[in-house]
Amino acid sequence: MPVLDDDRLFPLDPTGRSIARDLFAEVRDLPIVSPHGHTDPRWFAENERFADPARLFVVPDHYVFRMLFSQGTRLEDLGVPRRDGGPVETDPRAIWRRFAAGYHLLAGTPSRLWLDHAFATVFGIEAPFTPATADDFYDRIEECLGQPDFRPRALYDRFGIEVLATTDSALDDLRWHRMIAGSGWRGRVIPTYRPDAVVDPDAADFRGNVERLGELAGCDIGTWQGYLDAHRSRRAFFREHGATASDHGHPSARTEDLPQSEAAGLYQRVLAGSASSEEADAFRGQMLTEMARMSLDDGLVLQIHPGSQRGHSSQISAAFGPDKGFDIPGRTDYVRALRPLLEAVGLQPELTVILFTLDETTFSRELAPLAGVYPSLRLGPPWWFLDSPEGMRRFRELSTETAGFYNTVGFNDDTRAFCSIPARHDVARRVDCAWLATLVASGRLGRDEAPALAEALTVGLARQAYRL
Amino acid sequence: MPVLDDDRLFPLDPTGRSIARDLFAEVRDLPIVSPHGHTDPRWFAENERFADPARLFVVPDHYVFRMLFSQGTRLEDLGVPRRDGGPVETDPRAIWRRFAAGYHLLAGTPSRLWLDHAFATVFGIEAPFTPATADDFYDRIEECLGQPDFRPRALYDRFGIEVLATTDSALDDLRWHRMIAGSGWRGRVIPTYRPDAVVDPDAADFRGNVERLGELAGCDIGTWQGYLDAHRSRRAFFREHGATASDHGHPSARTEDLPQSEAAGLYQRVLAGSASSEEADAFRGQMLTEMARMSLDDGLVLQIHPGSQRGHSSQISAAFGPDKGFDIPGRTDYVRALRPLLEAVGLQPELTVILFTLDETTFSRELAPLAGVYPSLRLGPPWWFLDSPEGMRRFRELSTETAGFYNTVGFNDDTRAFCSIPARHDVARRVDCAWLATLVASGRLGRDEAPALAEALTVGLARQAYRL
Amino acid sequence: MPVLDDDRLFPLDPTGRSIARDLFAEVRDLPIVSPHGHTDPRWFAENERFADPARLFVVPDHYVFRMLFSQGTRLEDLGVPRRDGGPVETDPRAIWRRFAAGYHLLAGTPSRLWLDHAFATVFGIEAPFTPATADDFYDRIEECLGQPDFRPRALYDRFGIEVLATTDSALDDLRWHRMIAGSGWRGRVIPTYRPDAVVDPDAADFRGNVERLGELAGCDIGTWQGYLDAHRSRRAFFREHGATASDHGHPSARTEDLPQSEAAGLYQRVLAGSASSEEADAFRGQMLTEMARMSLDDGLVLQIHPGSQRGHSSQISAAFGPDKGFDIPGRTDYVRALRPLLEAVGLQPELTVILFTLDETTFSRELAPLAGVYPSLRLGPPWWFLDSPEGMRRFRELSTETAGFYNTVGFNDDTRAFCSIPARHDVARRVDCAWLATLVASGRLGRDEAPALAEALTVGLARQAYRL
Repeated sequence: MPVLDDDRLFPLDPTGRSIARDLFAEVRDLPIVSPHGHTDPRWFAENERFADPARLFVVPDHYVFRMLFSQGTRLEDLGVPRRDGGPVETDPRAIWRRFAAGYHLLAGTPSRLWLDHAFATVFGIEAPFTPATADDFYDRIEECLGQPDFRPRALYDRFGIEVLATTDSALDDLRWHRMIAGSGWRGRVIPTYRPDAVVDPDAADFRGNVERLGELAGCDIGTWQGYLDAHRSRRAFFREHGATASDHGHPSARTEDLPQSEAAGLYQRVLAGSASSEEADAFRGQMLTEMARMSLDDGLVLQIHPGSQRGHSSQISAAFGPDKGFDIPGRTDYVRALRPLLEAVGLQPELTVILFTLDETTFSRELAPLAGVYPSLRLGPPWWFLDSPEGMRRFRELSTETAGFYNTVGFNDDTRAFCSIPARHDVARRVDCAWLATLVASGRLGRDEAPALAEALTVGLARQAYRL
Repeated sequence: MPVLDDDRLFPLDPTGRSIARDLFAEVRDLPIVSPHGHTDPRWFAENERFADPARLFVVPDHYVFRMLFSQGTRLEDLGVPRRDGGPVETDPRAIWRRFAAGYHLLAGTPSRLWLDHAFATVFGIEAPFTPATADDFYDRIEECLGQPDFRPRALYDRFGIEVLATTDSALDDLRWHRMIAGSGWRGRVIPTYRPDAVVDPDAADFRGNVERLGELAGCDIGTWQGYLDAHRSRRAFFREHGATASDHGHPSARTEDLPQSEAAGLYQRVLAGSASSEEADAFRGQMLTEMARMSLDDGLVLQIHPGSQRGHSSQISAAFGPDKGFDIPGRTDYVRALRPLLEAVGLQPELTVILFTLDETTFSRELAPLAGVYPSLRLGPPWWFLDSPEGMRRFRELSTETAGFYNTVGFNDDTRAFCSIPARHDVARRVDCAWLATLVASGRLGRDEAPALAEALTVGLARQAYRL
Repeated sequence: MPVLDDDRLFPLDPTGRSIARDLFAEVRDLPIVSPHGHTDPRWFAENERFADPARLFVVPDHYVFRMLFSQGTRLEDLGVPRRDGGPVETDPRAIWRRFAAGYHLLAGTPSRLWLDHAFATVFGIEAPFTPATADDFYDRIEECLGQPDFRPRALYDRFGIEVLATTDSALDDLRWHRMIAGSGWRGRVIPTYRPDAVVDPDAADFRGNVERLGELAGCDIGTWQGYLDAHRSRRAFFREHGATASDHGHPSARTEDLPQSEAAGLYQRVLAGSASSEEADAFRGQMLTEMARMSLDDGLVLQIHPGSQRGHSSQISAAFGPDKGFDIPGRTDYVRALRPLLEAVGLQPELTVILFTLDETTFSRELAPLAGVYPSLRLGPPWWFLDSPEGMRRFRELSTETAGFYNTVGFNDDTRAFCSIPARHDVARRVDCAWLATLVASGRLGRDEAPALAEALTVGLARQAYRL
């Protein structure tokens, strides 16, 4: 039995499966449109080889190391760097063997699907990955990584990527994007404006960040208008380098639309570091509405990724820093939270706000009803812990009947694991074809309508929503 | 391929599908029992022809126009009247063409199922509805509407309706119901007592409404007892005209059971307009318990439809008024909220309180556990955004194991779209048969028990719960 | 058609069904590991016959009598004892007939599956249970109960139980467990340390309970340290009698980790009865963290069963006491609530904390993300109203992709209905095999990996997590 089943993720009944297979055949080879993710633009700028199998697949992948950690493996033993520079495993093969020893823990998870797919399709390894085969896998991958065909640009081409968006700090000089543009390479790697560090008063060195923003933009951040102008300037800079979207990762979906004089006063307090926790939160909310207004001017699509409670274990944060698998979702409200922004600009069809959630109870109760009526709103695909076959299925089941397909925006791979990009799009395409096949087989959709929808979910809606 | 698949909404596996088909054959032609809805009694009183296809299918259907609006079509261009009398499209064919141009947006929604069913079964049109066929559809429907067979009473008969409940203000004089009763027509169109306008202190002209209530009832609404007596009088009036139920649409499921002296004081403050927002809410909660007590006396079934946040966009409310697709569900609590009412009268088997929700997280957590033990409680069918194949399936999956079938009340079509009534009951019957077939095919229910349950879900439970 | 379908609860499609059948064949006859439940140790100590069919199947089963009560049968008529000693039905056959009259109400519920299974497999009755067959069933069961083969120990052996944990007050003298140990019988019936009565300041006679705890332990409960020492002493006593776990049923999952001096002050206030409701809640939360610390010392596994709002009807509580079907779930937060405990000891792999929930919205949002990273956390199986085929299916669908299989702990039958134990394990094994078969048939799991997982879910994970 091969590791990759040709019919994986399709419906189990023969009729549905047959329809899904036909639909998938039509979208399988379409280009990859990746409008939101976390790959490193430096890879494509320098086009150096990837370091080794462990640093490609294990060390940076929080899905993987959190699962191993949950069953008792120390992060140090997986090579995850400590903030204090304390000793961690440096032998990639030792890390790789620990990874193999815990691979069975990933049974039933999307990581397992992504990894199996990458091993088989990127590195051509047909065997199951087990402790017994770990060294063979390591050697094979290591050998590949040394070849020109496995450099970042070659893989970009092999993967059939049409466009790849990175996520970049508002303070980033976009040097790697400029280097790519100047290189003559035909790949399209575009930045995304992520201003959390200069919008969130609770961010580390917020004041310093804002001052740096002002310097970069040549604006006087001592005033509210100057601060907004600095954002406008940076957004223009990002747009000049290809950006079509901004992205905002807030603790909640709270928005505010304060009178400008109040907002200006609030800004002075957050800048002075004298704002209360509630005021800091209000400021984040105000800035979402300001960003939406700027989007109406400059056309950037606004993405909101709310509801993750970052760094749940202070001990892990202290020892290893952020993004170490300890970000835990919480309940997220959208109906009240988004109202100020929607009252201000929500009826404008020229604006596109893409909403994400980690609280899937909101799909049928809040998000589909909101996106099903506000012309500015679209639903982002299932995010993070929900970016999985069951998560995607529930998303379609819970949102389609109220929001339809055209208020959704296709798939985001949302990853820093470059080799998993084809795998993730493969999963999304299969699950979407399975859902369409189920609708057809149950008489809810015409067989003749399904191919156009499959193509829309694969490439069309993403191109349109993200203005690519 | 015909637009309507004979096996639509049945399980995909051959065994389940075969059982569902057999069960459905036994309930397909049972009469339509419609104990809750929003059709206009005037239609049946006057029995005039319906105006035109656009005003039948588009202009009043918030499911349809909210979807088109979400993708950029202006409400004015769909003929939705403005409160200021400003210009809107008046050409029904132009509206119809815009509807056809956006019909693909409804793919995967229940509206699509209802509309296809109505076109095919009510108007006999077999083709798919597209921009290319829009004019043919318009002409065919327009031609039908001019015929006697398409008048309201003829359609009522053709649809096989046994009883149809409307929803009527406590201040309504029920003239249309009286006109129907006096006409000799054998149709049973009954009113439902909906007192929101005289129970909700936040309703427009609450004081005026209450004064009008007192006049109609001949009671002194200056006192709490007089106000309650006025309700008793109006309820008796409604019962004389066939009503078997009341209905209450509150922002939350909050109930109160204050000492009568406190309730009387609270009433004086809401009447004087001096009540706080919290007191207004408490008053609504108190009135649910008072209505439950009256139900114990007069036998009216009490329906609670809580949890919709009405008029989310103030701009749309100002321009177009209520019920324009901008009512958005919110989280709803039942466990604490209903406790005062349940402590007062919840153990009485003679009382029937039917609970609805837009927050389906409550089905397994709160509603099924409550309805599975309190003799007065029953679960209403999936409501509004949840009145859909997936919503109905989830309702059964989430409630049956704790509340069983007999604490549910059958189907409500809950519609003002008269031609969609057969379609909605068709969907409900098919989904219920699919669920029963799944239970049988997975060994959870005897094949011999399923037909009686199918009939109960189709007509029996509704007749019993609503005392029809 | 037999009452028990051989393929019950398996997938409906032929491929999935065939795989499930093969997997189930391998685990069907594995021993029953029952690490959490509410059987009475006295049964096994004295090994007397069970009283009669009604007192075996109806009177103590809140799933059954709550459903009958919800449809109008009085608890008195089902023989449920009144606290005031008032008259209730004492004729077991009369109770039995009322049970039969309402048996159809259980269609679609897990109770129906459990009861049918017990009738067929424990008592060998093949017919459907109906009012017409009620007397035959009664006679047959009554006849069996008089035979030695139907005494508790004989059934324990026949059921293939490997270990059976009871749940016991911290104040229990474990006399029955000692009597079992001294009897020479080879059954393994072990206690579980349940200290709610001496940890919850809102418990009846909390002060008296704590004083009794001090006496039993020989500790001075006048001080915080003496109180903690008393717990340590009682836990040691329970461990000596076989306990491997403690269990905690709190209104919420709130934990605290106060400085010890604050905790000591808080203890004095709760002991004096002067603590506020908020302080009582904080004390419960503090004690969860203290118990976790003790677990690190003595190795007891810590189970948390939060989120039930006990005694929703005060009238029923007054008349019949607790556990009468009126405990209703509420929304439960874990992310913030557990943080103090997790900050204190959550990263210790030597600690095992098993989390349960009645709010299944937390599975994908909170519990799987938490258990998928904290080495101390494991997910308990679906609990109470969720201990059902649909509940189990949703649990796997909602938790596996983030927490995997190895952060779950197998099945708990959690029952006081002894004869239902084989039925409940049968349901769990079938549903788990169905889930594994679905993963295999959809290409998400290797066919060769599934048997080991099926065995782990059936016995391995329970033995490991509960240290049996």
